[in-house]
Amino acid sequence: MDLWFSEFHTPHVKLSIKVKEQLYHHKSPYQTIDIFDSYEFGRFLTLDGFMMLTEKDEFIYHEMIVHPAFAVHPNIQSVLVIGAGDGGTVRELTKYDTIQSIDLVEIDGAVIEACRQYLPQTASALDDPRVRLHIEDGLPFVRKQHQAYDLIIVDSTDPFGPGENLFTREFYGNCYHALKAQGILINQHESAFYDQDRQAMQKAHKLLAKVFPVADLYQFHLPTYPSGAWLFGFASKGLDPIKDADHQTWSDRHIPTSYYNPGIHQAAFALPTYVKELIQP
Amino acid sequence: MDLWFSEFHTPHVKLSIKVKEQLYHHKSPYQTIDIFDSYEFGRFLTLDGFMMLTEKDEFIYHEMIVHPAFAVHPNIQSVLVIGAGDGGTVRELTKYDTIQSIDLVEIDGAVIEACRQYLPQTASALDDPRVRLHIEDGLPFVRKQHQAYDLIIVDSTDPFGPGENLFTREFYGNCYHALKAQGILINQHESAFYDQDRQAMQKAHKLLAKVFPVADLYQFHLPTYPSGAWLFGFASKGLDPIKDADHQTWSDRHIPTSYYNPGIHQAAFALPTYVKELIQP
Repeated sequence: MDLWFSEFHTPHVKLSIKVKEQLYHHKSPYQTIDIFDSYEFGRFLTLDGFMMLTEKDEFIYHEMIVHPAFAVHPNIQSVLVIGAGDGGTVRELTKYDTIQSIDLVEIDGAVIEACRQYLPQTASALDDPRVRLHIEDGLPFVRKQHQAYDLIIVDSTDPFGPGENLFTREFYGNCYHALKAQGILINQHESAFYDQDRQAMQKAHKLLAKVFPVADLYQFHLPTYPSGAWLFGFASKGLDPIKDADHQTWSDRHIPTSYYNPGIHQAAFALPTYVKELIQP
Repeated sequence: MDLWFSEFHTPHVKLSIKVKEQLYHHKSPYQTIDIFDSYEFGRFLTLDGFMMLTEKDEFIYHEMIVHPAFAVHPNIQSVLVIGAGDGGTVRELTKYDTIQSIDLVEIDGAVIEACRQYLPQTASALDDPRVRLHIEDGLPFVRKQHQAYDLIIVDSTDPFGPGENLFTREFYGNCYHALKAQGILINQHESAFYDQDRQAMQKAHKLLAKVFPVADLYQFHLPTYPSGAWLFGFASKGLDPIKDADHQTWSDRHIPTSYYNPGIHQAAFALPTYVKELIQP
């Protein structure tokens, strides 16, 4: 059988992946959830037809969304993760023994259940005793928190559909108040390359820069995301991602990684000229 | 009309680009040359169906293959470019007024003619009076040169078909002898992500490291190449791409770029952990 999954990265560009079989299909109240097995990327998860993760390259995304913050703030104890029902972000977090609690707020419990069944590579970390699951909307959840977290990770889908509330000034303002004085926010920030992604990236950056005194971007390569050139936002109440990075202390913790390392940390914050120009105030 | 160009990045992954019209098609003695116009990427050139460049993202490739060497060696005067009949590499080179001569050795004159007609964005630089065109095989051409060049750029196609000779120990050895004492070789080095590209990358690196005392890799994002994570090799008789980089002198030259800058220079040589492991001796 010749079965292909295709995602339109723009109306005029698409990436196609040959599928072995479809493992899961479900329409939840929020979105359509599909899990496939493929020849090149192993199993992969899509929401409303958009690629979320593949077994082959998810390590890049999840290492880069988690580890940079830990090189800058060596004593992160309480973490809030919004979205990320697949568990990949939580898996990387559980590598740190300083962490005492991880609140995972995922609006769609069906994503968690599907990943538990078909994507143990990421979802098995959800069983860590430090993880508390909250099946609810991230926006009102964060509104209720005050100086509760050392780190908030917004591992959102795109800024339309269920993830829409997570790309607003109100949400980022709530995150600011939910963070402790040394707190860090890491934000899924789309990409600078294609028009629609770029507009979302610029909007998110403008909103974050209004709320946080430090609001930087960092980049990494993700082969299965549109253009492969992807960005996360690093925002904080004061900690600087380069000046305050302590790579020796981080290295001494011997966290196993396949993409992230101290050189990549420094490198990721160096942006191409065209990206720098896009985020100039 | 719904016309799409597709390239298989592996047997199980393909990238497709919607085409406005085909502008050029020709079978030369070496390869099939096609030029298309597209909605997302403007015009693009393929050889034997493999993407060579698009108007939208070629700046990334051509800036990254040229400028790092100039930050390390501030007085490059004579340059040899092998392949690159499209002229993009030459365009970036002609931004430097220290350069006195550029020998461009392209095996297939039909590529140059096609690009002159349909891709002036890159090919117009071929009219620069410092450029000498040599329509011949790069391997014997380099064999005849001794300590003649400050910089050799191997802007080859993949290591099969017409570009095959350019991924051999003999060729790299000839390049060593063709370089002056402070000479630098920049080599199109494939990618670390997919199997076939990774094997080519590892082979090229092993060969270069046997011939040159300095043999490093650097990375950049190229949305239209397989996986988007692409590598160039930096080899030299002694100059180190990081320690010997003089970013102030480079910046004072006011070379206009859209991707490359001193931060990107330092960043590009920081490799992901999985790539570092692949090139360990």
